[in-house]
Amino acid sequence: MSRPTLAVILAAGEGTRMKSSLPKVLHAIAGRSMLAHVLASVKQAGITDAAVVVGPGREDVAKVAQKELPGCAVFTQVERKGTGHAVLAAKEALADGKDIIVLYADTPLVRPQSIETLKAALADGASVAVLGFHAADPTGYGRLIVEGDALTSIVEEKDATPEQKAVGFCNGGLMALSGEHGLALLEAIGNDNAKGEYYLTDAAEIAHRQGFRAVARPIAEEEVQGVNDRLQLAAAEAVMQSRLRATAMREGVTMTAPETVFLSHDTRIGNDVVIEPNCWFGPGVTIESGAVIHAFSHLEGAHVGSGASVGPFARLRPGADLAEAVKVGNFVEVKAASVEKGAKISHLSYIGDARVGAEANIGAGTITCNYDGYLKHRTDIGAGVFVGSNSALVAPVTIGDNANIGAGSVITRDVPADALAVARGRQVGIDGWAKAYRAKKKAEREAKAKG
Amino acid sequence: MSRPTLAVILAAGEGTRMKSSLPKVLHAIAGRSMLAHVLASVKQAGITDAAVVVGPGREDVAKVAQKELPGCAVFTQVERKGTGHAVLAAKEALADGKDIIVLYADTPLVRPQSIETLKAALADGASVAVLGFHAADPTGYGRLIVEGDALTSIVEEKDATPEQKAVGFCNGGLMALSGEHGLALLEAIGNDNAKGEYYLTDAAEIAHRQGFRAVARPIAEEEVQGVNDRLQLAAAEAVMQSRLRATAMREGVTMTAPETVFLSHDTRIGNDVVIEPNCWFGPGVTIESGAVIHAFSHLEGAHVGSGASVGPFARLRPGADLAEAVKVGNFVEVKAASVEKGAKISHLSYIGDARVGAEANIGAGTITCNYDGYLKHRTDIGAGVFVGSNSALVAPVTIGDNANIGAGSVITRDVPADALAVARGRQVGIDGWAKAYRAKKKAEREAKAKG
Amino acid sequence: MSRPTLAVILAAGEGTRMKSSLPKVLHAIAGRSMLAHVLASVKQAGITDAAVVVGPGREDVAKVAQKELPGCAVFTQVERKGTGHAVLAAKEALADGKDIIVLYADTPLVRPQSIETLKAALADGASVAVLGFHAADPTGYGRLIVEGDALTSIVEEKDATPEQKAVGFCNGGLMALSGEHGLALLEAIGNDNAKGEYYLTDAAEIAHRQGFRAVARPIAEEEVQGVNDRLQLAAAEAVMQSRLRATAMREGVTMTAPETVFLSHDTRIGNDVVIEPNCWFGPGVTIESGAVIHAFSHLEGAHVGSGASVGPFARLRPGADLAEAVKVGNFVEVKAASVEKGAKISHLSYIGDARVGAEANIGAGTITCNYDGYLKHRTDIGAGVFVGSNSALVAPVTIGDNANIGAGSVITRDVPADALAVARGRQVGIDGWAKAYRAKKKAEREAKAKG
Repeated sequence: MSRPTLAVILAAGEGTRMKSSLPKVLHAIAGRSMLAHVLASVKQAGITDAAVVVGPGREDVAKVAQKELPGCAVFTQVERKGTGHAVLAAKEALADGKDIIVLYADTPLVRPQSIETLKAALADGASVAVLGFHAADPTGYGRLIVEGDALTSIVEEKDATPEQKAVGFCNGGLMALSGEHGLALLEAIGNDNAKGEYYLTDAAEIAHRQGFRAVARPIAEEEVQGVNDRLQLAAAEAVMQSRLRATAMREGVTMTAPETVFLSHDTRIGNDVVIEPNCWFGPGVTIESGAVIHAFSHLEGAHVGSGASVGPFARLRPGADLAEAVKVGNFVEVKAASVEKGAKISHLSYIGDARVGAEANIGAGTITCNYDGYLKHRTDIGAGVFVGSNSALVAPVTIGDNANIGAGSVITRDVPADALAVARGRQVGIDGWAKAYRAKKKAEREAKAKG
Repeated sequence: MSRPTLAVILAAGEGTRMKSSLPKVLHAIAGRSMLAHVLASVKQAGITDAAVVVGPGREDVAKVAQKELPGCAVFTQVERKGTGHAVLAAKEALADGKDIIVLYADTPLVRPQSIETLKAALADGASVAVLGFHAADPTGYGRLIVEGDALTSIVEEKDATPEQKAVGFCNGGLMALSGEHGLALLEAIGNDNAKGEYYLTDAAEIAHRQGFRAVARPIAEEEVQGVNDRLQLAAAEAVMQSRLRATAMREGVTMTAPETVFLSHDTRIGNDVVIEPNCWFGPGVTIESGAVIHAFSHLEGAHVGSGASVGPFARLRPGADLAEAVKVGNFVEVKAASVEKGAKISHLSYIGDARVGAEANIGAGTITCNYDGYLKHRTDIGAGVFVGSNSALVAPVTIGDNANIGAGSVITRDVPADALAVARGRQVGIDGWAKAYRAKKKAEREAKAKG
Repeated sequence: MSRPTLAVILAAGEGTRMKSSLPKVLHAIAGRSMLAHVLASVKQAGITDAAVVVGPGREDVAKVAQKELPGCAVFTQVERKGTGHAVLAAKEALADGKDIIVLYADTPLVRPQSIETLKAALADGASVAVLGFHAADPTGYGRLIVEGDALTSIVEEKDATPEQKAVGFCNGGLMALSGEHGLALLEAIGNDNAKGEYYLTDAAEIAHRQGFRAVARPIAEEEVQGVNDRLQLAAAEAVMQSRLRATAMREGVTMTAPETVFLSHDTRIGNDVVIEPNCWFGPGVTIESGAVIHAFSHLEGAHVGSGASVGPFARLRPGADLAEAVKVGNFVEVKAASVEKGAKISHLSYIGDARVGAEANIGAGTITCNYDGYLKHRTDIGAGVFVGSNSALVAPVTIGDNANIGAGSVITRDVPADALAVARGRQVGIDGWAKAYRAKKKAEREAKAKG
């Protein structure tokens, strides 16, 4: 049986190098905040109990935390006195003897498996467990000093002896402390150092000295890369995108240029879907098998049915729900609209707050006028309807099944099933007019050029 | 004189890791199937005689093979008993004593030159010739064991001695067998191994033991990378794209960000063409010199004349034929349309099944209504025509030279040369209406909000 | 005090490998010519006095030089006899004893700091100063032979002893010569070599032999990469883009996929701006803080106010000036138009040569008909105006504040404030027409299919 475990997520960093009015941990990667990513990994590792430590006045951070992990406790670190001090801001939550796992909200790439590795180390008898990575270049990182299976201390670069500097096994930051000794170890951390701060890393050496087991377990360097500025944010985004793309491709999705496809953390894509280069997926997108997403498509909060074709240059906004074999073509925007089986919206259209019936054909340049400047209204287009090009459907309006709308019409009243509706001017002509006009306009242009 | 040569292309792999209903070898890179790429290289190496070995019931694969290399023989490998067995599925074609070159349809990056290298080795007296590459990391590959100039055997990783494992020269898979000994060597391959399969690679050792010459020739690792899943498919696509871009740039094409330009195997681009970032070229595109393809353009089956300007955000579909100095601007789709010299379609238009005469100016929002729900019809726009914005031209319809169409018209009847045609409503106004409307609508909105 | 310094920019290379009718040094990176980049670095290093050496008949190059650095002298190198000879083409400018810094117009990545490094070396007593880089692979480069602090010679690869070839410190090309000895050193360069050319690099050895100080200072390899073909042009563009993106991100701009964002040398972006993937910025763009540029946006010569939202699929052309909180949505083109605070142009519109008043709402498919085939005219849309979808505004035309335009209207006359204007046909209907039409059309289609 799993031991009761509390995740402590440190989210109080100021992030001044972000140069942002948004708190650092709320900056997003793959469509959700870094904090939410960490909380999601915590959940996936089977931990439901969490304490998030935020900076003073950071209700916005607290709100995101409680939305992502309902019931999590939020604590405020009033003064900034180091990571050890930050964890103790959650002291109230630490008091009931659960195992403790400390994570950082600005280290969003940690996988659930790594959290499970820490849990397993505690279950295996360790009082302190730390994740370390083998750095290509260890310069600047704290070194994990290991003797046999024991982690004896974590030494900062600046305090390291030449021998210690030669160690390539570096501190990944995440730490687990057993419920039995965790709180005592945290309280034993002192601040007798240059900055007068309390360093969480000291817990390892303290545990070792007190005769408890401290251990280090390996983690990939990629997982523990932190985000302190927007370059690092972009780097973390790139890692996350690589993971998401690889997972999709392994499941049978073709991406001809995966490096140009941008997914969200929750994008779901069926097999034999083809995604051409340069597509963007915001949160909440599901694509069924066999669909083709052509180049330059932008999807968010949308559902694409099996065998459907989207783009190139299509935009599906939240609430776009395309059934099987639907076609949405170039320069088409669909929003809050249900497009039924086999319907086609091939070019230059805006379909919003609408239903498009099965097998309907929406001509190029069709616009649902869903907004009157004050309220939004619905357009209901029946099955088999043919809407001629360049038509405007002024909502609220209903077009009955199999009706036909003449090109260039502005439809303001309901159209019965099987009827024709036309609303446009009669064509009139003036022979020779254009010739005379040309002569006049050329003269004007010349006059202007001289003038 | 070139010796008669038969290419045997193994295309029977099931490709289960592709997780696809499409046979693996029909998955495309750079706009054509992997199988077609291999057959094209075979042809370019001067080989016209080929046998393709497919899995049971794979008429689709056979069809592609015969389309790409008319007259090629297709054989079915009924049971799957290894590569040696697969080649012998084509035994009938092997019987007439031609030199044999074995290729793999899932190894689509092989260059014609490498096939010629194999041919040359046979011409030089070898009975077996193999292409090998120097692997950065040889783990997992078969090793080529060479003594002097002789290839004595090909040893699989799992059967290799530590000494053999230290060899970095790896088996690229492709093999040539001389017409004189080829069939006998293939038939000498046994299946006395763990899996009970017939391994083509054994032919090298058999030849060497029988006193014939077996040799290894070098090939770049890149050329022999195989495709077994969609990640590898994307990797092969990336290599192919790099080759296509580099060739174009060397010939005088500017790409400011070549890594974002996606070409097809047959894209032809003249010198001093500029291609901005993020352009996509499907099969069948030709661009003449001095044209500019602006960012976010999507072309397929289209011809772009010299000095023409396309995009940004333009889509040219099959049959779009732009003459010299034509301009197709943003959010414009052109399909099956001939656009003559100097004509301009600058914004938000759909021109399909049409001719646009020289120097014509097509206003923003113009749509050719080419489809009546059942059949397609043509629009013919004369030279020097001015089509006012937001017009719909209902095909079949002809606009005579130098005619003028008023903005917002729906043109359903032919317009004579030099004439004006207008088809729209008269402007009427109601003073103060909007003010009253605002008051009413605000009240409605408030009522709804309270609602 | 800074010593008087003359920059000599060699811009006479023919660039045949570019395969272009445009002179090599006028090919652009990040939106301006390579020559202009070099001249900009010269200016930023505090040098205002420059001589540009061009090939015969290259008035186009001269013109760009004088535009970028008004007052710079232009000299023609009539015969091509090496770099030493090219510098002496500017002999007239060298005669007045200023320090000389030689740069290459096809080496556009040199930073101002590196030019300052050369100036400092002369100020420090050197007669010749050269910038060298530590090459990963020195093959092909000239080697800098240094003894103590003295640069004794620059040896070409082909003339180098094995010992010299082992040197990894390579010639970056840029050279500074003191005003005191520079001209004499240049004139002492001989052409007693295989090609009979005058090599600037010889100046180092001559100085050293004459007992003057020659020194080498370090420069990053990236800065001195030259451009001789379009592959190298793309490589230089990539370096420049990386610099521009990193600078923006450091200043507080979020780019989720910086490698897909293409900036110009002069793009200015405020903090907390978010730029989604796949955006393109031509010259002359300024983005104020807090704006969001959605994916697939294309901006040039445009201003985007704080908190504004652009795209996806938006195009801002020169003269687009968006005020605070403006929204320009998908498939919208804005050109030479001032869009005032809070106005919205959300879909499928072309707004050119116009003003859009504060809080106006421009419906989907709205087009300003600004061109009559001969002249451009202005559209003036007042504050609070509501333009119904699919409307055409035929310029010159003025829509008064808070007026309302009915959907599908073609507006040709001014509309007073608070008024309603409608210009469209009446809706008429024929019951059952579509049913009969279907029957007829299906018969036609069948007849055609048989026919």
